[in-house]
Formats: sequence, structure tokens, C-alpha cells
Amino acid sequence: MTLDGPKAWSALRPGETTTDRPISADATVQFIGTIGAPWASAQDCPKQGDAAGGPICFIELVPHLAPTLSGLRPGARLQLLYWLHLARRDLLLQSPRSDGNLRGTFALRSPLRPNPIASSLVRLIDIDGPVLSVRGLDCVDGTPLLDIKPEFGHLTGVAA
Amino acid sequence: MTLDGPKAWSALRPGETTTDRPISADATVQFIGTIGAPWASAQDCPKQGDAAGGPICFIELVPHLAPTLSGLRPGARLQLLYWLHLARRDLLLQSPRSDGNLRGTFALRSPLRPNPIASSLVRLIDIDGPVLSVRGLDCVDGTPLLDIKPEFGHLTGVAA
Repeated sequence: MTLDGPKAWSALRPGETTTDRPISADATVQFIGTIGAPWASAQDCPKQGDAAGGPICFIELVPHLAPTLSGLRPGARLQLLYWLHLARRDLLLQSPRSDGNLRGTFALRSPLRPNPIASSLVRLIDIDGPVLSVRGLDCVDGTPLLDIKPEFGHLTGVAA
Repeated sequence: MTLDGPKAWSALRPGETTTDRPISADATVQFIGTIGAPWASAQDCPKQGDAAGGPICFIELVPHLAPTLSGLRPGARLQLLYWLHLARRDLLLQSPRSDGNLRGTFALRSPLRPNPIASSLVRLIDIDGPVLSVRGLDCVDGTPLLDIKPEFGHLTGVAA
């Protein structure tokens, strides 16, 4: 069993299956900022963010990356990618509702996955220097940020 | 100027700005599979995938992760995250149309970004053991895969 981060997100539930293969380190990611959110632990987080009515969260970008925000405007819809640093990475089959109904990790949007990268769509409320305020996040306070992308183009990638 | 991968995706255009800070290695990602696509170079790739009419691409999952696909069905819409291994990571301001109209990297969905992770929505056509066929990708043949997520829940994260 391989854990990543200071602790496993959760203990195993009945039937959940893990791999004992080590996690290969094929490329490195850099944290571009940190998310400030009102949830202190994974258990406190909502299942999914709410870009309309959810609480405002703050993103503090690494200062030298501030020029990368040029062209972003309040009101924009953004896709954020972030690194779920507390999540275990070894689950093959999961039972999210603890009901013994097992599904493969890639048939779920569970935070527990080989590469614990979350993707959420948020509303940009304001920009103040290297600090962005957004609605729509769902993660633990202190979660590292990986990427900010404008939403456009993404939702039209699949015909309805 | 810091390059990542065997070569830069492209040369700099007029006005484009880079950082000379080294890329920090804050976490590691593991490649969970490889994408087979009909495009041999970045210049050949479409700007965006087409999940309805685009060509079929193949994903060959790392064999020991095959159980993670349990519960996925042909016809499903999936979000894929993949690692743009040829992309340079040091651009702060970019001019995608070479018109001198500069925007920050995070105001663009350009492949050239601090963490070159692409996100596309695709249609799952078939599953054959550890091989998935999908429509909707836009990347170079041999691109490493990072994650497969069902689409559900993602598009409803932002109120229309």
C-alpha cells in the first residue's frame, strides 16, 4: 500500500482495492499558488463547488507569476486545476458511499486517484495584485494550485 | 529561460515574456497511459478536439491499472487530463496569434504554461481490456495521460 502526503485521506472501506506498485515519478509539477478556503479538513468540504452561491475562496499566486493574470477580468468563468495533497493515490476500486458498490477509480470523480488533480469551474469575483477571489471551490484550506484556464472552448469540446 | 522536455514547443514571438526562475518540483505525477493520435507534431494538432466528429484516438492504460476502468461504459463523456511533454513552461505573456496582442498565460488555454496539463472532454467509443478508444482529443501521438474522470458533475459546477 502506498500513501502520499502526510496521511491517507481515509481508511479503506469494505471491498476497496489498492495497488502495491510504487508511484512512479514521471514528471514534476510546480505549485503556482495556494488556495484559502473555509474548510479545514477533507470531511468538511462540499462534494462539489458552487460557482454561483458558494463561499468566496482566495487564491494567492506565487508573486513572480503575477504577469500571467494579464487579461483576466472579474466575472470570468475559469477552470482551476489543483493538487489534492492529502489524498491517497493507490486505490483501484472504490466504494464512495460505503455501500460495497465498488467502481473503478476512473469511473468516479473521487479525490482519491493515481494523480490527485482536481478540476473545478469557478467564477472570478475579483483580482487584487496576485490574489484572486473566486466562488466554486470545494477543497481544504491550503490546497496547492496547479493551473488557471479560461473556461471558453472547454465546454464546447463535446457536442451536447 | 527554462525549457522542459526535449525541445521547446515553439520559439518566442515578438513581445512574449518569460521567467528565468527555475521550475520548482513540488510534487510528482505518474503517467497512467499513453495516447495514440494521428498527429505527429504540435503543428499538426487541431486547436481543439471534436468529441462528435474528430478522429478516434487510442489510450493504452498501464496494465496494472486496468481495474480502475470498472464501471465505464461506451458512450460516456469523459474528461481527460494529459501531460503536454513538449511544451515550454516559462512563458508569462503570450501572443498566440503572433499579432503582438499579448495576454497572460492564465488568460489563455495555450498548451504553454507552468504546468502543461491539458483538459479535454471526449466521448468514449469502446473499451478493449486496457485500451480505450475516444473522440475529442487534440494532442501529439505519444502524449502521456494523467487522469480519466467521468464528466458528470463537472459541467454543472457553474450556473449557466
